[in-house]
Amino acid sequence: MFTVTVRDQMLIAHSLRGEAFGPAQRLHGATYVVEATFRRAELDPDDVVVDIGRAGKQLRAVLAELDYRNLDEEPSLAGLNTTTEALARVVADRLAERVRDGALGEAARELDAIVVTLQESPVASASYEREL
Amino acid sequence: MFTVTVRDQMLIAHSLRGEAFGPAQRLHGATYVVEATFRRAELDPDDVVVDIGRAGKQLRAVLAELDYRNLDEEPSLAGLNTTTEALARVVADRLAERVRDGALGEAARELDAIVVTLQESPVASASYEREL
Amino acid sequence: MFTVTVRDQMLIAHSLRGEAFGPAQRLHGATYVVEATFRRAELDPDDVVVDIGRAGKQLRAVLAELDYRNLDEEPSLAGLNTTTEALARVVADRLAERVRDGALGEAARELDAIVVTLQESPVASASYEREL
Amino acid sequence: MFTVTVRDQMLIAHSLRGEAFGPAQRLHGATYVVEATFRRAELDPDDVVVDIGRAGKQLRAVLAELDYRNLDEEPSLAGLNTTTEALARVVADRLAERVRDGALGEAARELDAIVVTLQESPVASASYEREL
Amino acid sequence: MFTVTVRDQMLIAHSLRGEAFGPAQRLHGATYVVEATFRRAELDPDDVVVDIGRAGKQLRAVLAELDYRNLDEEPSLAGLNTTTEALARVVADRLAERVRDGALGEAARELDAIVVTLQESPVASASYEREL
Amino acid sequence: MFTVTVRDQMLIAHSLRGEAFGPAQRLHGATYVVEATFRRAELDPDDVVVDIGRAGKQLRAVLAELDYRNLDEEPSLAGLNTTTEALARVVADRLAERVRDGALGEAARELDAIVVTLQESPVASASYEREL
Repeated sequence: MFTVTVRDQMLIAHSLRGEAFGPAQRLHGATYVVEATFRRAELDPDDVVVDIGRAGKQLRAVLAELDYRNLDEEPSLAGLNTTTEALARVVADRLAERVRDGALGEAARELDAIVVTLQESPVASASYEREL
Repeated sequence: MFTVTVRDQMLIAHSLRGEAFGPAQRLHGATYVVEATFRRAELDPDDVVVDIGRAGKQLRAVLAELDYRNLDEEPSLAGLNTTTEALARVVADRLAERVRDGALGEAARELDAIVVTLQESPVASASYEREL
Repeated sequence: MFTVTVRDQMLIAHSLRGEAFGPAQRLHGATYVVEATFRRAELDPDDVVVDIGRAGKQLRAVLAELDYRNLDEEPSLAGLNTTTEALARVVADRLAERVRDGALGEAARELDAIVVTLQESPVASASYEREL
Repeated sequence: MFTVTVRDQMLIAHSLRGEAFGPAQRLHGATYVVEATFRRAELDPDDVVVDIGRAGKQLRAVLAELDYRNLDEEPSLAGLNTTTEALARVVADRLAERVRDGALGEAARELDAIVVTLQESPVASASYEREL
Repeated sequence: MFTVTVRDQMLIAHSLRGEAFGPAQRLHGATYVVEATFRRAELDPDDVVVDIGRAGKQLRAVLAELDYRNLDEEPSLAGLNTTTEALARVVADRLAERVRDGALGEAARELDAIVVTLQESPVASASYEREL
Repeated sequence: MFTVTVRDQMLIAHSLRGEAFGPAQRLHGATYVVEATFRRAELDPDDVVVDIGRAGKQLRAVLAELDYRNLDEEPSLAGLNTTTEALARVVADRLAERVRDGALGEAARELDAIVVTLQESPVASASYEREL
């Protein structure tokens, strides 16, 4: 079993809904350091899991849709409680769509799974894993 | 599959039993950077894996029982060879007990698993994973 | 010359004024990992630069005034363009005031200088240094 | 389930074959920060996954065969496209051979699996996992 | 005194001249994680040390001249023993030239100093500091 | 101005004297991640600040005198309150002695200064700087 991981970040504002979130119910923000891990059983004809340059560019493209924005007013996230967990799923689902669309190359369609981790601070992170 | 990870640390003294440990048989110490990862298949009604504030507080409470102590004289660890692996299980088991007791909230009782990792230095770490 | 450094973080929302900031003119946010370094030529009677527990508590208190907030609406920052550099100075000045007020102990009044560094992402940080 | 991880690094030159690699087709190099994770269900009689001192020494021995070398001219890698993924497998396979040969001790023969991760830069890494 | 630091990396091959370098006399390589720190006494009219976006782009441009290359065959480094220290000076001098040329903006001409640090592995780094 | 930094670690037990230390008055321990930075104005004939291999070996030798020990019973530290600050000075002074003795090579006698930093946890560190 092989994996490749690329890393990037996004700086966003948001607020969370629910008493459990305490002060995080206020409008605040975060730098999310985002890691996307791609997994497959065998390497492709280029001896890689996925073209790491393409993987980095597609992760950047997905994050650019949210970067330097207030997620509370982001139409594509309307109705979503943007917890770190929920955002990890958003990023993973959008990357998965790009894999299906061929944006990571033909060989990438044989990827088995993707894991997206968002580190919100040195003491807290969340991840979401899904099949491809 | 979702996870949430919280991080904290503890500073302890101890010695290890067994010739294989060489100089670590002497009384020495370590800063353990501790990560506790909670895992579940679906998010709870607040759209989280677990209340990250509560998770951090319970991890702190578990570590406070050992922090700034000589583990060789810690009654609750009597008879235990306090290797990094063994301490990872102690922390995981104590967190699991707190989950069962409801200290992380009602929804946390549906967590699937917990993984505890202790980084003892930049070049060595150990982890223990268990179901909940 | 001795130093002691303590680290903490704050999660804030803000926007920046000036065309040079490009997309950062929009309301967004950041996790600032904050390091405060205290410097003095000789150790105090306890053989430390400053009581590290007190230093951490005072840094926490200063950050708590800004944490989980939208800095654009923070009265104490009214009129300030909250660049990372400017925020480093705000944190340093507020810590310096606490040193003068004795909140870090009597011996801390003999500290020579303080440096505050804010890491806003893995690729960017800023710092401010001042005498005490 | 327990794991132990040891970390070391190697500094190598190489070039990659295939248009997909763009500028990495040129002779260049990398510092690979290498983590080897050993996994087993139960601890051995010394209460460890594997003797961490021995694990570190064997990882060092495996890396020393490649360290400070141009992998394009390394006989033992002849014909291999030395992507990060492929090198992760080389390191894992060589460690697995040492486990089988008893170099990590008798108890290490009961290890279940090994994962090797190579971090090539702050933004990219690859891993390979295999059974033992 | 204020500073701003940006970070990037380059992956190069090279060999070092001199018996003292032992195995590093062979052709090998490194990932250099490069930090460039800009320093000035007062903030510019935008309340920054330097436009962090421009600083990052100019650092990228300087590193791109060396990235994915064999420095032993790099004409602009002919005759240079490319130790980490020497490369830190090359990067700092090239950045300084860009500051003088106005590539970081008019206000950047009032920067006081620049420090460039190259981390070649988790256990070794070098830096060079110069006035502007 | 050039610097070179090498990094290593030591795992020790100790206790601190003085009410200000609270729970750290109890016997506990720490992993100190130790960085030693050497500084000089011009490079030596090998184009380095100091032979990085030798620097790493001498740092290891200095740390080996304390590693895996209970500092409360260490004869060479008798009477010393082993705060992180005080230990930084011990390590720096012992390295300085080795520089004077020629253990880092003849050229190293022209080093200007040394800075030793001990990171005791992700949230606290101390340093000591001295001339050579």
